[in-house]
Amino acid sequence: MTKGRLEAFSDGVMAVIITIMVLELKVPHGGDLAALRPLVPAFLTYVLSFVFLGIYWSNHHHLLHATERVTGGVLWANLHLLFWLSLAPFATAWLGENHREAVPTAIYGAVLLCAGIAYYNLQTTIIRAQGPRSTLAKAVGNDFKGKLSPVLYAVAIPVAFVNERIADALYVLVALIWLVPDRRIERLINNGT
Amino acid sequence: MTKGRLEAFSDGVMAVIITIMVLELKVPHGGDLAALRPLVPAFLTYVLSFVFLGIYWSNHHHLLHATERVTGGVLWANLHLLFWLSLAPFATAWLGENHREAVPTAIYGAVLLCAGIAYYNLQTTIIRAQGPRSTLAKAVGNDFKGKLSPVLYAVAIPVAFVNERIADALYVLVALIWLVPDRRIERLINNGT
Amino acid sequence: MTKGRLEAFSDGVMAVIITIMVLELKVPHGGDLAALRPLVPAFLTYVLSFVFLGIYWSNHHHLLHATERVTGGVLWANLHLLFWLSLAPFATAWLGENHREAVPTAIYGAVLLCAGIAYYNLQTTIIRAQGPRSTLAKAVGNDFKGKLSPVLYAVAIPVAFVNERIADALYVLVALIWLVPDRRIERLINNGT
Amino acid sequence: MTKGRLEAFSDGVMAVIITIMVLELKVPHGGDLAALRPLVPAFLTYVLSFVFLGIYWSNHHHLLHATERVTGGVLWANLHLLFWLSLAPFATAWLGENHREAVPTAIYGAVLLCAGIAYYNLQTTIIRAQGPRSTLAKAVGNDFKGKLSPVLYAVAIPVAFVNERIADALYVLVALIWLVPDRRIERLINNGT
Repeated sequence: MTKGRLEAFSDGVMAVIITIMVLELKVPHGGDLAALRPLVPAFLTYVLSFVFLGIYWSNHHHLLHATERVTGGVLWANLHLLFWLSLAPFATAWLGENHREAVPTAIYGAVLLCAGIAYYNLQTTIIRAQGPRSTLAKAVGNDFKGKLSPVLYAVAIPVAFVNERIADALYVLVALIWLVPDRRIERLINNGT
Repeated sequence: MTKGRLEAFSDGVMAVIITIMVLELKVPHGGDLAALRPLVPAFLTYVLSFVFLGIYWSNHHHLLHATERVTGGVLWANLHLLFWLSLAPFATAWLGENHREAVPTAIYGAVLLCAGIAYYNLQTTIIRAQGPRSTLAKAVGNDFKGKLSPVLYAVAIPVAFVNERIADALYVLVALIWLVPDRRIERLINNGT
Repeated sequence: MTKGRLEAFSDGVMAVIITIMVLELKVPHGGDLAALRPLVPAFLTYVLSFVFLGIYWSNHHHLLHATERVTGGVLWANLHLLFWLSLAPFATAWLGENHREAVPTAIYGAVLLCAGIAYYNLQTTIIRAQGPRSTLAKAVGNDFKGKLSPVLYAVAIPVAFVNERIADALYVLVALIWLVPDRRIERLINNGT
Repeated sequence: MTKGRLEAFSDGVMAVIITIMVLELKVPHGGDLAALRPLVPAFLTYVLSFVFLGIYWSNHHHLLHATERVTGGVLWANLHLLFWLSLAPFATAWLGENHREAVPTAIYGAVLLCAGIAYYNLQTTIIRAQGPRSTLAKAVGNDFKGKLSPVLYAVAIPVAFVNERIADALYVLVALIWLVPDRRIERLINNGT
């Protein structure tokens, strides 16, 4: 019961976040194709952020599915994650309008980094509440992607001040790592190491 | 359980989309009837988009109702559908302000086309997960409407550059095909062929 | 199951409507008390619309609670109600900014009237689906309030062109009729007739 | 069942409130760090309001979890709470833009005070419906925090006209009282008295 409402509230918040981001795609006043052209970077940033929110929702879904006990600490770890995700519309809109600038590119990465850390923290809080031998602890395993993503964000932030395109490429890379079906990439990574 | 949350998140996203579209009906500054007149095309476009979102919600409702297994692929096929639907407020607002222009009319159709393909793809993904002999596979049947709609959108897009009113009429036609209760129209179509 | 999702979607739409109305309370630029004064009519209109949405949600809640069968007709009668409710933010914002004008006052009443008719239609559609001897048919009874409200709105609309304050008073009256606990007022009305 | 929908609607409204507040963080036009600086007070106000909404959601969650009977009075006491919470985006945005001004600081406290009273009223209404020997009545106990918070808000409002920083500090203090895990602070307070 308790878990149900945690899921429902998180679904609500993530549904609103993912949807109001599109309000930042300002409707152009002209009606020709040229009016759309300045929107292209904003649109691409929107697509990227939509994918990130989708990844968070999907992971959150799996995480909570395997959760049995919800404690007060889990409620707040979850709210902490939602806080950083709620900054996504701001970071997306700012980067979309200033995609050639270092600071908005770095801030976008910083929001992703904080959300990534908050997610990791939520996962750890839940596992602690379930016990180390729970199915969740086993399912998460070494959580390669969950550890790699914050590292890539942390690299991208200073890189944004050198070349903001490389930082953008790192953000896209993280999204791709999560989008590509799990097992194959993990096998590849495991074979590579 | 898993299905419940997929439905809840989709409901949330579609509820927000359908509702924030009305924010694009800019409140006029004057208080007389003349102040409303320029809003008429925007209002009619809003009505059309509301009907389309209603159709998608209703179809999604029936589709998920008949779904037994939700896989990772279904989650992403569903997010893909929600992505295109999330562009509806933008497309609606742009068309509402420029209803005599070819490009916004074509873009509106392109968003509908992509959403239609994404829905078809979601349906196929779900049927594949359920197996070809599932009730869903039988219920969907030959899915005449689901195949006809993208064709009509694809026709409307180039037509928008010739006469945007014919394109608008095609969008209204698709909405009517779905609004008219199912069996009768299908019987008509089946008799006609 | 089907009913659950109808409720969830309606809850989502009504939650967004009731909340985005507050976005029309434009934040003043100055920071003194005088900056709040021009917002008073907009605030009062917001309160009234919040109460109306609250009444609709509460009635919808009771109506669906007593519903056993959800048909395709019920889905669309429900979407029809949500459509008119979705215009509440627009009507509220326009009246809030032009509360001395006849047309916004009349349009506000027209949206309420259409929503009232749509609610009545939803109720009738559900009762038809349940059968005339269902608990719902008995619970609704003669539905005095449900019939009186549209009449009062229909009176208020032309009255708005004579004196918009009387129309406003009629809207407030309808809200009060619903807010005052059910039994007492019905007893009063029954005694009075 | 009835309770489920009350929770779902409240979750929806609180999810939208907590998320649309971020829309008031206006995206700056410039792309350098200096463009972010004027947003700092608005951001800090957003953080504070996010925490308050999180506290309300978390308390509401626990309150409803322990609720067995939902009456018409509970529905309206809940809507009354949601009304005051719905003003949070307005109060947050106004304070964020005018954090050195007395009136916005006092209004922010007034919205918190009204929400606090509405919550207390909801709690009392639910306890009355459950009976004085219910688990809820025992769980709430003397409700030290629930009584202290409105007192602190009521103190902060006049203080805002003397020194708005002390008022801000009082708001932060209330948030901290709720954020710090329950038992320890209550033990401290109980030891202190």
